[in-house]
Amino acid sequence: MNLEGEASTVGWARWGAGTNAKTLPDTASTLLAQVLDLAPPPPVVPLAEVAVADCALDGAVLGALRRALGPDNVLTTRVARARHGSGMSTPDLLRHRQGRVPAAPQAVLRPGDHAEVLSILDICSRFGVAVVPFGGGTSVVGGLTPSATRHVAVDLGRLNGLVAVDPLSRTATLQAGLRAPRAAELLAEHGFTMGHVPQSYEYATIGGFAATRSSGQASAGYGRFDDMVTALTIATPRGTIRTGRAPASAAGPDLRHLFLGSEGTLGVITDVTVRIRPLPARSHYEGWRFASFADGLHAVRSLAQDGPRPTVLRLSDEAETMIGATGSGRSDGGCQLIAGYEGADVRPTVEAAAAVLAAHGGVPLGEESGRQWARHRFDAPYLRDALLDAGAFAETVETAAYWSALPEVHDRVRQAILGALPDAALVLAHVSHVYETGASLYFTVICSPGSDPIERWRRAKAAASDAIAAAGATISHHHGVGTDHRAWYAAEIGDVAVDLLRAVKQQLDPAGILNPGILVP
Amino acid sequence: MNLEGEASTVGWARWGAGTNAKTLPDTASTLLAQVLDLAPPPPVVPLAEVAVADCALDGAVLGALRRALGPDNVLTTRVARARHGSGMSTPDLLRHRQGRVPAAPQAVLRPGDHAEVLSILDICSRFGVAVVPFGGGTSVVGGLTPSATRHVAVDLGRLNGLVAVDPLSRTATLQAGLRAPRAAELLAEHGFTMGHVPQSYEYATIGGFAATRSSGQASAGYGRFDDMVTALTIATPRGTIRTGRAPASAAGPDLRHLFLGSEGTLGVITDVTVRIRPLPARSHYEGWRFASFADGLHAVRSLAQDGPRPTVLRLSDEAETMIGATGSGRSDGGCQLIAGYEGADVRPTVEAAAAVLAAHGGVPLGEESGRQWARHRFDAPYLRDALLDAGAFAETVETAAYWSALPEVHDRVRQAILGALPDAALVLAHVSHVYETGASLYFTVICSPGSDPIERWRRAKAAASDAIAAAGATISHHHGVGTDHRAWYAAEIGDVAVDLLRAVKQQLDPAGILNPGILVP
Repeated sequence: MNLEGEASTVGWARWGAGTNAKTLPDTASTLLAQVLDLAPPPPVVPLAEVAVADCALDGAVLGALRRALGPDNVLTTRVARARHGSGMSTPDLLRHRQGRVPAAPQAVLRPGDHAEVLSILDICSRFGVAVVPFGGGTSVVGGLTPSATRHVAVDLGRLNGLVAVDPLSRTATLQAGLRAPRAAELLAEHGFTMGHVPQSYEYATIGGFAATRSSGQASAGYGRFDDMVTALTIATPRGTIRTGRAPASAAGPDLRHLFLGSEGTLGVITDVTVRIRPLPARSHYEGWRFASFADGLHAVRSLAQDGPRPTVLRLSDEAETMIGATGSGRSDGGCQLIAGYEGADVRPTVEAAAAVLAAHGGVPLGEESGRQWARHRFDAPYLRDALLDAGAFAETVETAAYWSALPEVHDRVRQAILGALPDAALVLAHVSHVYETGASLYFTVICSPGSDPIERWRRAKAAASDAIAAAGATISHHHGVGTDHRAWYAAEIGDVAVDLLRAVKQQLDPAGILNPGILVP
Repeated sequence: MNLEGEASTVGWARWGAGTNAKTLPDTASTLLAQVLDLAPPPPVVPLAEVAVADCALDGAVLGALRRALGPDNVLTTRVARARHGSGMSTPDLLRHRQGRVPAAPQAVLRPGDHAEVLSILDICSRFGVAVVPFGGGTSVVGGLTPSATRHVAVDLGRLNGLVAVDPLSRTATLQAGLRAPRAAELLAEHGFTMGHVPQSYEYATIGGFAATRSSGQASAGYGRFDDMVTALTIATPRGTIRTGRAPASAAGPDLRHLFLGSEGTLGVITDVTVRIRPLPARSHYEGWRFASFADGLHAVRSLAQDGPRPTVLRLSDEAETMIGATGSGRSDGGCQLIAGYEGADVRPTVEAAAAVLAAHGGVPLGEESGRQWARHRFDAPYLRDALLDAGAFAETVETAAYWSALPEVHDRVRQAILGALPDAALVLAHVSHVYETGASLYFTVICSPGSDPIERWRRAKAAASDAIAAAGATISHHHGVGTDHRAWYAAEIGDVAVDLLRAVKQQLDPAGILNPGILVP
């Protein structure tokens, strides 16, 4: 990110920029044109022409911030502010394409250390200016669009160092603004990895992973980001909290978990200490086919509960398998499973897991289908750009549930989305995060945009969220709450817990400046 | 527990009663008499003669409680109240032996369901009577002795059912007052186990495990109790909180972790849903010897970080190994390690782990030493009774630290205890809970009682706690905070976090009735 607040690679109104862009396979384009009522998309308004009102902060606030951070680190240009005005949901991108940034910050602040973050919180508390912590800007749930009338974005991009590595204890302290690929490079220099590879990997940051309880594609082997965090440093308007004195403790409630998932509403995470593991010497990916999603779920559950555990485990339902196959020209039917293995010597695990998968009716598809998944593991958001360019609409919904509820959740959410969309839509789903007691479900919806795709999706998403709630699942497995899931989140945790979170916020953030309206109204 | 509030087996002023009592091996008695200045203990004041003042609650409170619970479930007898007046630390037992119960509750309440717990909280909030949730009564950190002038104990013994089992998701919902052995029986009827076997197993309850973040002897294989909990139901003065909608979630902070470890200060846990596993078909325990504690630590760290993971992993330091050997007549020197394995087919893991242990210089001692440990796994608190009977003093200190800090923590805490005790003392230690990033350290101290053993221990424990803090370790790995660790806990989490916990308590418990003075002053 340069002084204009330009990310080096992220596009405007799209995930991928320039050379990173992906195109849809011809077969997929043909299929989509047959199935959906595609509408030629309106032209994209360039970033330079996006309407952003002038900065409305008065000189006293800006002066105080400039003194605290240095004038170069208080950006008020329209471009910098537009770039920090929302996340990366499809509605966000569509608004950007239309030249709209409904919640542009008044300024973009670039603190250089923890003390400067504390200064920002102090100044903004005194002047009543809301603060939105900004990492990779990849929220897909409205986590960067607070309800405040004026706010500043705190871009943590300058907090991008590896603070410490303890190779004996296998921990590393990383600054919050480090993007995942750079964090991986820095750890690799010491021979280690976090193993945290979510789909947002290319842009997302360490602090964002913590603030939103991220989960990566290799969570079966490496765990969720929550599981990796051993300590956090958090700047709050009341001062600093440092959690995580030991690998495990019975000294009171584990306060790490109050800030993991707090989405910037309780403080600004400035560094994160994570458990690290040696870089794996080997990796192996392979595909399997199951006759049905139900059969595949049995197999996946068996591995999750009784092992052996692959590092990556991803089961597509029939619809996702079919659409995935259109690109490769395969048409095996059934459901595809991808199993990935990373470690010092993966062969015994590969063989033991293969025996389990075969015992549950799995048919091996070989390494090439696994390698193909690995090559394209970050493609989905680029393909979303391509779908929007092609005049379609694409967005995702995700949840998690206990194993016994999973088939019903899959069915109800699918039906709810299909029922809420008035014409043809593709609803694809996969399981990609498994636990002993249950798993995630990730739905991709591809449909016609209609005349008002944002409002159309709002209704479909509400129907999906209602179905998730009715089926007893959680409103988010790894995207977070933001503003989009707020109502369902409140219902999920109940009034007593909502009031509790409000009291926690009131204590740490008495002026109510931190990401107001996110998580809890 | 009958209507007099008598536990069926627990003794008075001692852990074990009657037939459960253990005696010291003759060799150990001889050694102790040689090393320590043993003092013949004063006679134990029988329970019936313990001084407990009359119940001071007025008729209005008692009337409201009796109407809510039924008169049989509001006990005001001296015996019931004495039995609910403290935990099981050595100072607690010494006071009991002297006929003292400094914090006897005014009444012992026995709610029959969650709604009755809510009623108790409502009545006690209105009348300003403090409430101490009481499970197994095994706290060793003063967790049952609040700072209130008058309080009631809420004995959860009637909440002793298995509510639900979901064999597919491998979860079970257990009521909070279930003692661990009964919980194990109920789960075994369905073919499952929690695998949670702390030393307090015989008396401790499910709710207590959750409220204190318990960790069991098989934590290397089954995890800490925190890890097992998927959901909690908590009665608070503000109403009910139900957490744990899914196996994993990114929907806001994980509120389970605000109540795990809350030690009854934020609410009364009434049921706990835990992850369960199939009853293991096989178990295997074996002993190993290492030349030094440092060598053993390397071996244990290797298994914890790179596997294979035994289910039980326990490494004694030189002193503990020597004292342990006095009972069996062995005198191999070095440090003893116990490795236990449970599962469907343990042999491959046993062999793979043996290769790792041997590569780190371990010498196998065979299965008998492992079986001996397993036979005596619950003996320590009984042996404490025997030591007190023999005129010695015995108590424990425990902590956890990252691997790189562990040797220094071991050394500093040992030295601090020895330095604080004016004459000879035995300080034995072991590692019994391992993590990828670190491990626990558990110290057993055996010394002369002196003229005022309680005050003498207070000073030694303070020195140990100061050393733990100075070495950067946590003030408790699995005993909790209670009143004994309060000052060090506050320093460990810092002022901002202490104020945060106070705000949480103020929100959930505005009348301040829940275990006042525990955890945070």
